[in-house]
Amino acid sequence: MNKINGQIESTTVAFEDFAKYNEQVVTVKGYIHRIREMTGFSFIILRTHNQTIQCVYAPEFSSYRFDETITEETCVEVKGKVVCSKDAKGNDRYEIQIHDIKVLSRPKELLPIVVNKKQLDNIQLNTILDLRPISLRNPKQRAIFKIQEGIQRGFREFLSKNNFTEIHSPKINFAGAEGGTNVFKLDYFGKEVFLAQSPQLYKQAMVGVYERVFEIAPVFRAEHHDTSRHLNEYISMDFEMGFIDSFEDIMNMETGALKYIMNLLKTEYQNEVELLKIDIPEIDSIPSMKFMEAKELLMKKFKYQPTDMKDFDPQEEELLGKYAKKELNSDFIFITHYPSKKRPFYTMDDPNDPEYTLSFDLLFRGLEITSGGQRVNDYDTQVAKMVKCGMNPELFETYLMFHKYGAPPHGGLGLGLERLTMHLLGFKNVREATLFPRDINRVTP
Amino acid sequence: MNKINGQIESTTVAFEDFAKYNEQVVTVKGYIHRIREMTGFSFIILRTHNQTIQCVYAPEFSSYRFDETITEETCVEVKGKVVCSKDAKGNDRYEIQIHDIKVLSRPKELLPIVVNKKQLDNIQLNTILDLRPISLRNPKQRAIFKIQEGIQRGFREFLSKNNFTEIHSPKINFAGAEGGTNVFKLDYFGKEVFLAQSPQLYKQAMVGVYERVFEIAPVFRAEHHDTSRHLNEYISMDFEMGFIDSFEDIMNMETGALKYIMNLLKTEYQNEVELLKIDIPEIDSIPSMKFMEAKELLMKKFKYQPTDMKDFDPQEEELLGKYAKKELNSDFIFITHYPSKKRPFYTMDDPNDPEYTLSFDLLFRGLEITSGGQRVNDYDTQVAKMVKCGMNPELFETYLMFHKYGAPPHGGLGLGLERLTMHLLGFKNVREATLFPRDINRVTP
Repeated sequence: MNKINGQIESTTVAFEDFAKYNEQVVTVKGYIHRIREMTGFSFIILRTHNQTIQCVYAPEFSSYRFDETITEETCVEVKGKVVCSKDAKGNDRYEIQIHDIKVLSRPKELLPIVVNKKQLDNIQLNTILDLRPISLRNPKQRAIFKIQEGIQRGFREFLSKNNFTEIHSPKINFAGAEGGTNVFKLDYFGKEVFLAQSPQLYKQAMVGVYERVFEIAPVFRAEHHDTSRHLNEYISMDFEMGFIDSFEDIMNMETGALKYIMNLLKTEYQNEVELLKIDIPEIDSIPSMKFMEAKELLMKKFKYQPTDMKDFDPQEEELLGKYAKKELNSDFIFITHYPSKKRPFYTMDDPNDPEYTLSFDLLFRGLEITSGGQRVNDYDTQVAKMVKCGMNPELFETYLMFHKYGAPPHGGLGLGLERLTMHLLGFKNVREATLFPRDINRVTP
Repeated sequence: MNKINGQIESTTVAFEDFAKYNEQVVTVKGYIHRIREMTGFSFIILRTHNQTIQCVYAPEFSSYRFDETITEETCVEVKGKVVCSKDAKGNDRYEIQIHDIKVLSRPKELLPIVVNKKQLDNIQLNTILDLRPISLRNPKQRAIFKIQEGIQRGFREFLSKNNFTEIHSPKINFAGAEGGTNVFKLDYFGKEVFLAQSPQLYKQAMVGVYERVFEIAPVFRAEHHDTSRHLNEYISMDFEMGFIDSFEDIMNMETGALKYIMNLLKTEYQNEVELLKIDIPEIDSIPSMKFMEAKELLMKKFKYQPTDMKDFDPQEEELLGKYAKKELNSDFIFITHYPSKKRPFYTMDDPNDPEYTLSFDLLFRGLEITSGGQRVNDYDTQVAKMVKCGMNPELFETYLMFHKYGAPPHGGLGLGLERLTMHLLGFKNVREATLFPRDINRVTP
């Protein structure tokens, strides 16, 4: 009989701790990232979960007999002495003099791409994606999804500190859950059901229970277009909050969350921020502008003739982003009061001008990353609005339960995790910021 | 032009802070949970996101003219003075003398069930589930999913502190991802794809990148049986770790995570633990026993004649749970070394006895809550094992990329969030611990 006591042995010595181990013998496990043979010795660069460590192999202090069976991507345990030397700038630089190597596993074949250079050079995005399990072994590629972790972690931590409850709503939804044609259909034991396009209806219902809720989970959109900014499956970061005084409460909460996220990246993801040379936006407050004001600005200042007076095209978003940066010194700008016709059925109309809504989008450096707003909370108003939108309220009986039995003034938003990651990192294609992207042509790996 | 500065106004005064506001006038928003009319005054119980607050309405200090249009489930803002009196035990008890009430929204109809009693009495589970958006307004029902939040939060926090990276793997999987018949099929732009049964293959691949990864996300199982412990969609808490010395490293990590979770519930979810009268298990170390030892114990000590020598039936799990509690003073017991024939193709066989595997299940009070183990990491061994299992390795090319180009010794586990919640709370049916359950008969609400 064994007893499993939950004591975790730390297998990695963090790079920043090496000073503590100077002149001591340590054991480190990892992948052999790179081998550079020199005259009389070799550099063996070890890759651990978050760093590369320079190890030196030389017959005079290494008992292990190094030969050509040790290749890159071999998993090893290295035992050796931490030694310190000065780099060109006079800073301390630590490396390990290898005493012994224990081989833990060997690759079957050599890698088909070079991952141990600074970045993946001259490799097409499609190849990078086809080979995701190994292309991510490149430290710069790997850093992308550490940053993505940091973004969603910041979102979660900030909301938790502000009394939000984390929920998990079902991804298999009953017929008609959100309407629209862009849904994936599924045969569910003979019934036709849909994959969730968003947690919208569930998060609203939970406002009646927890007042403030959030969810970070996959959503599915059967959109046929194949663009650089759309995915058919992505991670949506959603929140919904009750007892608001105005839809500006939601914008305030998002501003707070973004400040928190950017600060978290600067402080706890510093290595990745430096590796990817990320220009972290400084956020103090975020300017906001009404939809119609923005349209006028585009026409007057930029002489841009809009083709659609109900929404913005990508070029308009870009111009507004430039304006926000240049004139308002902000990487972000809220656009509020979108036309009622372009917003979903649950959006609250502006009581002062029902052609427009109490809604907003957030543009980040000229790209829309959020849609949000206040929701209808009165039962009769919601039923009437559904009918006006050509929907059948009877199909939404369980959704309308929330409104029928009492719903406070409330609102919320959704934020696409991959799209925010993409734009923060300056990528042109959202697939670069998606671990295993799903689009109209890709369901592998 | 507005400026949105991210300053969050706190709308709720937490109950535990009321002493700070004694004799002061505060504003609190919430639902009217219950109205009790007395002679000359009324108690109005206000429900906020995490508590109920007793407010007193009396014409002598209330300027608002209370009448029958104010019903339960009306959303209000109450302004009033915090006053302190002694309860029967002589403890301080705070309540609010209502000065004014502002109605924020009114329900269209009165609730079809009583939610403002201590618990939902004499209401069938099916009705509770049909009415989830409102049955959860009962504080005891609501507490269930705060506890669930705490469990997954503890899992995440513990693993993050132990250098795990959080990942999001795709839920739309390509053909043959895990084999088996219990998969939901989906028409994906003319291609047949599957909903993920588990993140298994993706989390293994990410061990080659981040060494330690975890994911908390929905999984989908098209199982036809309709039992009290199965769901067709549930939240799986998965982790996978590389560079392990033995599969006991995984059991140690799980033990550590469970200790952390239980401690978190005791310290930060105290109200819910008390409300639901949860018997939080004390964990020091967790005993473990080999599969065949357990079978012998069942036969010798309990005179139980097993019908299946490759797995346990629910009654056997229960007996082992009783044994662990009585003889080993533990609510948990690991059963290790399951027969090779009953474990998935990626499980590593025990080199000392290949009929058995380096795998384990964790039983909690006689119910299996985890399966885990060490995985095959050698390419040739994995291909051979797939062929032996009747699988076509060519369909798993992208999965096997991890093995082909170097995979360290590794392993992991999966833990069903709803099932753990159910058993911790002493429920008989997993649906009670599922926010919006999906089973063969239910896809609504």
